[in-house]
Amino acid sequence: MRKLYIIGIGAGNPEHVTIQAIKAMNQVDVFFVTSKGEAKNDLMQFRKDICERYIDEPSYRTIEIVDLERDPSITSYTSRVEAWHKQRALTYEALLKNELQEDECGAFLIWGDPSLYDSTLRVVDQIISRGQVHFDYEVIPGITSIQALAARHKITLNGVGESICITTGRQLSAGLVSDTENVVVMLDGECSFKNVLNQEVEIYWGAYIGSDKEILLSGRVTEKAESIEMARSAAREKNGWVMDTYLLRNPSARRP
Amino acid sequence: MRKLYIIGIGAGNPEHVTIQAIKAMNQVDVFFVTSKGEAKNDLMQFRKDICERYIDEPSYRTIEIVDLERDPSITSYTSRVEAWHKQRALTYEALLKNELQEDECGAFLIWGDPSLYDSTLRVVDQIISRGQVHFDYEVIPGITSIQALAARHKITLNGVGESICITTGRQLSAGLVSDTENVVVMLDGECSFKNVLNQEVEIYWGAYIGSDKEILLSGRVTEKAESIEMARSAAREKNGWVMDTYLLRNPSARRP
Repeated sequence: MRKLYIIGIGAGNPEHVTIQAIKAMNQVDVFFVTSKGEAKNDLMQFRKDICERYIDEPSYRTIEIVDLERDPSITSYTSRVEAWHKQRALTYEALLKNELQEDECGAFLIWGDPSLYDSTLRVVDQIISRGQVHFDYEVIPGITSIQALAARHKITLNGVGESICITTGRQLSAGLVSDTENVVVMLDGECSFKNVLNQEVEIYWGAYIGSDKEILLSGRVTEKAESIEMARSAAREKNGWVMDTYLLRNPSARRP
Repeated sequence: MRKLYIIGIGAGNPEHVTIQAIKAMNQVDVFFVTSKGEAKNDLMQFRKDICERYIDEPSYRTIEIVDLERDPSITSYTSRVEAWHKQRALTYEALLKNELQEDECGAFLIWGDPSLYDSTLRVVDQIISRGQVHFDYEVIPGITSIQALAARHKITLNGVGESICITTGRQLSAGLVSDTENVVVMLDGECSFKNVLNQEVEIYWGAYIGSDKEILLSGRVTEKAESIEMARSAAREKNGWVMDTYLLRNPSARRP
């Protein structure tokens, strides 16, 4: 039976890789590496570095998957992403069939953790339900950029007994985020924190967290929004891509 | 200058420890180990096992801190916890002063991740603001039981573009959790999922996740609540303690 590992590798610091991930990586015959957009080269290089650093006998093969673009003619965001997942399921299915022999072991190395804002598991579910190729699979958790952000700012995500909401820039901008004390925002290309006008809210922001490009900024969001946006934009200009995450903390939000 | 590491060690699987954590552990002269309640012996043993497994030269000392009880005469939950933190700050301050020499390195090994439902960083902040003992410190993230739960159930925490709310059993019971598609509940000694009556909601539950005692159950919450409660209660009876986490997924909740 073919075996597939879905391995979380952390979000930029190669030392955030776990022992479980390293043990799995050492059993892998074929790494399937997806890549897209401006971050492509750096993220590919990060995965290569991790393999070189942690794999004892480098007899593995690497297959690069050029990720398809999402179809811009589909107007609903969810439908657009779902169509894209279907495409990916077909691509991955063919790769598992053609590139992995019956007794071999493949792996996807996932930025951060496979359970958080990553679609690989959804695509794997689709492949399984299509029933065209059979394999066992295992999921290995990884350190997320959220945990790395909190560690580098030396903060907790929650106050005593409080909740935390993890959301996207899209939802924050659409006003769909509830009145929670602690809101973590990911995937925010639009600097949606600019729209937070409550002067009590504090922001803890980080880009390229845990890597040697790391930038950390924090303070009242109304005071810091502009400098964060400038830092983000300058970094993107310089590196060709940027990945950032932030926590908004509202001390006057609903209390338990 | 004294150095202190606050190290996340994962939530039960010794292979969830990261390379960064292992490197830090190998520099530590004194491990400060807090313990309390019924889980005490097993959690102490887990920390010892991790030290033995990953530290090359076992020249470190271990100091056990018997955790104080919270004062039951303080009725407000938040005030009770805050008073307890103040006590801990005094205890930890004295330990750092008396048990750690100027050039030595101490560490707290934190269950899961230091940023999530753990008070060590808050206590460290209090020690620093008291100014009685000086030290550098560094926070090292760890895999949380949430990520381990998702990995073992092979699920993502969020659907495409959705938010996730991380909360406590206390808040869920009090009806303080917003209408989010995905709610992760921690620290729930009361099986608050019993109060979820929406038949569409699915639960993904796990106890002792990642350890050899692991139990995983999932399904519609209205159908599974009773069997989960029974499994939890039987496990607690058998092991003397139980730690569990779960995801509630509501497919009909507000959509972006």
